[in-house]
Amino acid sequence: MTLEIWFEFASTYSYLTVSRAEPLLRRKNIDFQWKPFLLGPIFRDRGMATSPFVLDPIRGAYMWRDMERRSKRYGLPFAKPSIFPMNGLKAARVMTAALTEPWCGAFARAVFTAQFARGEDISSDDVLWTAIEDCGADPALWLARAREDDIKTDLRARTEQAQNHGIFGAPSFRVGTELFWGDDRLEDAMDWVER
Amino acid sequence: MTLEIWFEFASTYSYLTVSRAEPLLRRKNIDFQWKPFLLGPIFRDRGMATSPFVLDPIRGAYMWRDMERRSKRYGLPFAKPSIFPMNGLKAARVMTAALTEPWCGAFARAVFTAQFARGEDISSDDVLWTAIEDCGADPALWLARAREDDIKTDLRARTEQAQNHGIFGAPSFRVGTELFWGDDRLEDAMDWVER
Repeated sequence: MTLEIWFEFASTYSYLTVSRAEPLLRRKNIDFQWKPFLLGPIFRDRGMATSPFVLDPIRGAYMWRDMERRSKRYGLPFAKPSIFPMNGLKAARVMTAALTEPWCGAFARAVFTAQFARGEDISSDDVLWTAIEDCGADPALWLARAREDDIKTDLRARTEQAQNHGIFGAPSFRVGTELFWGDDRLEDAMDWVER
Repeated sequence: MTLEIWFEFASTYSYLTVSRAEPLLRRKNIDFQWKPFLLGPIFRDRGMATSPFVLDPIRGAYMWRDMERRSKRYGLPFAKPSIFPMNGLKAARVMTAALTEPWCGAFARAVFTAQFARGEDISSDDVLWTAIEDCGADPALWLARAREDDIKTDLRARTEQAQNHGIFGAPSFRVGTELFWGDDRLEDAMDWVER
């Protein structure tokens, strides 16, 4: 069975998952698929104009502290960016365009690291350009590809699919029809594949 | 350093923590304190009339499935009770009265098991009676003690303390001034003690 990794580029806990998942999954020979989607439309449909961590400052403050501790636990650099949530639309479109490319996981990690280790604005073409370049791919080509209509439609459809699957936050994992929510459930999802 | 276990008798994830914490903490020689409190007043202060799992059916449905899986992982019996959330006030008062008794952990586990393994209503004196009796203590004495004013005041004060500590859900763990939220952070809290 395939483990689907549903993630949103603006999501803090997605940073942890995207950064640590690939070696864990490969070590266990678990087949996986990246599923970039947008949380914004899902939050809006649920009556929230932005991230629940912004709407609820108490949970927000807790989340930032938890992120510091969890990043440390996983050996990942972390610094709270000055913008939150960032606009992850363009990054998600590039990822959507590149899903069948062998470097797409590295691209996702590069974008998350720019955001949560260096505080760079991932809605900027420059930041995405560097991330694509660091993967050895052609930034001009992929940024142009990301602007094409079929890619926009693809991402929109995947976001609707997320909603139909009952996904309400990121990261989420799907194994068959089984849904897991949160970076701290990655191991549960992996165990589910291996049952 | 002491690890404080802040829990609410009506909380699903508190069942997992209360059921599994004591042997883990004893094995590591970690000093701990039970901190029963009430989530109701905290939720109300945060604009929620009841549990967020009731207010948000999508997250509620996810939580019940997650509880089934997590209980299984920990080898704990679990059946979704017909009432949720139950009224844990009386149980929290008995626990408050019995905090210095050696059987108070066993009492908490007995109440949670009655609720989440057998679906019994923990607001009923009968259920609490049996839980106290099973601990080898005198039910009539402790149920009477739980109704005394100093116990009511104690529990109210501990709930206010929880709020002052920034606690917004249960279970939560405190180590020094460090706050951890959720059964899935028990191991992080234990590691924090041992740093």
